[in-house]
Amino acid sequence: MSSSPGRGTIAVVADKNLTVVVPILASGLPEERIEAANVITDPSAVDIVVSDGPFPGALKAFPGLRLVVSLWAGVDHLLTDPDLPPHALVTRLVDANLTAAMVEAVLAHVLAAHRQHDVYRRAQGEKRWAPRRQPLVSDRVVGVLGLGTLGTAAAHALRAVGFQVHGWSRTHHDVPDIEVRTGDDGLRALLERADILVNLLPLTPTTRGILCRETLSQLPQGAVVINVARGAHLVERDLLALLDSGHLRHAVLDVHATEPLPEHHPSWAHPRIDVFPHVAGPTDPATAAERAVETILAFRAGRPLTNLVGR
Amino acid sequence: MSSSPGRGTIAVVADKNLTVVVPILASGLPEERIEAANVITDPSAVDIVVSDGPFPGALKAFPGLRLVVSLWAGVDHLLTDPDLPPHALVTRLVDANLTAAMVEAVLAHVLAAHRQHDVYRRAQGEKRWAPRRQPLVSDRVVGVLGLGTLGTAAAHALRAVGFQVHGWSRTHHDVPDIEVRTGDDGLRALLERADILVNLLPLTPTTRGILCRETLSQLPQGAVVINVARGAHLVERDLLALLDSGHLRHAVLDVHATEPLPEHHPSWAHPRIDVFPHVAGPTDPATAAERAVETILAFRAGRPLTNLVGR
Ligand SMILES: NC(=O)c1ccc[n+]([C@@H]2O[C@H](COP(=O)([O-])OP(=O)(O)OC[C@H]3O[C@@H](n4cnc5c(N)ncnc54)[C@H](OP(=O)(O)O)[C@@H]3O)[C@@H](O)[C@H]2O)c1
Ligand SMILES: NC(=O)c1ccc[n+]([C@@H]2O[C@H](COP(=O)([O-])OP(=O)(O)OC[C@H]3O[C@@H](n4cnc5c(N)ncnc54)[C@H](OP(=O)(O)O)[C@@H]3O)[C@@H](O)[C@H]2O)c1
Repeated sequence: MSSSPGRGTIAVVADKNLTVVVPILASGLPEERIEAANVITDPSAVDIVVSDGPFPGALKAFPGLRLVVSLWAGVDHLLTDPDLPPHALVTRLVDANLTAAMVEAVLAHVLAAHRQHDVYRRAQGEKRWAPRRQPLVSDRVVGVLGLGTLGTAAAHALRAVGFQVHGWSRTHHDVPDIEVRTGDDGLRALLERADILVNLLPLTPTTRGILCRETLSQLPQGAVVINVARGAHLVERDLLALLDSGHLRHAVLDVHATEPLPEHHPSWAHPRIDVFPHVAGPTDPATAAERAVETILAFRAGRPLTNLVGR
Repeated sequence: MSSSPGRGTIAVVADKNLTVVVPILASGLPEERIEAANVITDPSAVDIVVSDGPFPGALKAFPGLRLVVSLWAGVDHLLTDPDLPPHALVTRLVDANLTAAMVEAVLAHVLAAHRQHDVYRRAQGEKRWAPRRQPLVSDRVVGVLGLGTLGTAAAHALRAVGFQVHGWSRTHHDVPDIEVRTGDDGLRALLERADILVNLLPLTPTTRGILCRETLSQLPQGAVVINVARGAHLVERDLLALLDSGHLRHAVLDVHATEPLPEHHPSWAHPRIDVFPHVAGPTDPATAAERAVETILAFRAGRPLTNLVGR
């Protein structure tokens, strides 16, 4: 494939999904020169990178970079990448299948917390027959941090099965049947009521470490924390202290400060933590590549980019 | 309270809920003589029993029994009670809160099975970071055995979150968006497709032991079985054999042949069985007593009884 004049090369930064992504880009963008980043012939000609996750240092080789198309929904690793040129644009994945998967993950975790699966599992470990009082969903408050693509979809689904849902975002959103709050006071009001807390914030300098001793201790006694956003949102030692003191009942961690979770990490063996290996909203590399084709076509045509991330 | 002429005594057969049930019956039925079964003054005067669960031998004392009002939804223990007079009527509990609780329990168990919580828990036990392929709900078939009050409500809720739902009942039911089957052939067709099987049949001579080697081995490899109906529906040793051979992936047992589950029962320690202590659809003794008042008023007035059970 030869590139048109004025048009640079597209470098694909990926490992295991390279063989899925490259053919889809090639067939959707027949006019473009598309190369795997590690075998690029002329790095200075690259103006677009298609990126499948965090590869530290991978952007350094491309001084002419104007656009990074992320195949992931979360782009914190790109926004904090010191090699990202100051004026380069970043787009992220918004994909119906990823949203659907995340909604199902959140529903499953919240319903398991609501129905006290963790408590009954501990009772089973002790061969203890111990029925407990069980509220209905209509008596439970679920707090959702972040009301973007994923948080809003999750909030709607939780409301549809009957939970009381409170949400928190940067700016105000009008979401039918959901109490939406903003700001520090809004966060405090949400935390005080949330029997079950779901984190779906993006990782930014403001949200890093937001789940810490101060915030988590505002949750009611016996609350359950579900983190499906990013590991660095959570101060792990604060969570452990609040689980061990009995203030929090349980935590579900789909994301972790270091992934894969190291063998000696305390989360693995903690009786009040469910570890999931970052599977709540998996990217389908094929559909993500199709979304990337759309973004690149819009970029080349000078049309607005719908999934642009504010830096 | 003195009973009107022609009207017998109401005996309440209950233990821990006696103090909740008796005052509600007394205030709703001011004309009736209501007594706890174990302190009854004239057993031969009893014509109605209000029954809060299985108390073997409790009916023997009441030869004049004409109606048993069960505070439970399942009445298999009454229908098989040798002391139930042949012509006595039996009504069972149909209660919106019980139905809501059962629907929530089924949703939580099915979503946990769908999202492979059991598999990730085993991986966590081995400190193994092992993301797996995850279908969406729209790619999963849930089979629901029994489409009565509870099965139909559960099927609707499962459909609403997006599962493909197949149901099985004695007679044909028209349920929108749900494949309904009847008979032995219908059961086989459902079992062959069900990734997740939910049992909500009543326990009768025909359904006892229905979850056995023959039926369970018709489920696809890797299926999950959820029993929330009665323990005696399931042949436990057949389930254990199919879990141990790897044909079935997991089982959730809310009900058990013997309850409370004895300390040395293999279900407690089995890595592929979740034990719950009969909590899927708990009776709220207060609302159940209110339903009993309505039934007794209808019976005394000679009106049709809505929750009559066919013997
Ligand atoms: N576990 C997984 O498998 C997985 C998969 C995909 C994504 N994720 C994570 O999920 C995150 C959310 O994804 P998304 O697509 O829903 O993102 P999004 O559409 O960008 O939404 C972000 C939401 O967070 C709110 N927000 C941002 N900063 C805030 C602050 N300082 N205070 C309060 N609210 C703030 C935003 O508020 P406004 O609406 O007012 O701007 C918005 O509602 C991703 O960033 C990623 O980390 C995880
Ligand atoms: N775990 C718990 O906490 C809990 C709580 C409450 C109830 N339960 C159990 O749940 C059971 C179901 O309750 P429900 O209120 O839904 O009962 P229901 O309204 O009587 O419904 C029973 C359903 O099973 C079907 N059925 C009966 N015999 C059958 C057979 N031989 N073959 C095929 N289908 C058959 C009936 O078919 P037709 O409609 O064609 O007659 C009906 O659809 C109760 O009996 C009880 O054992 C458990």
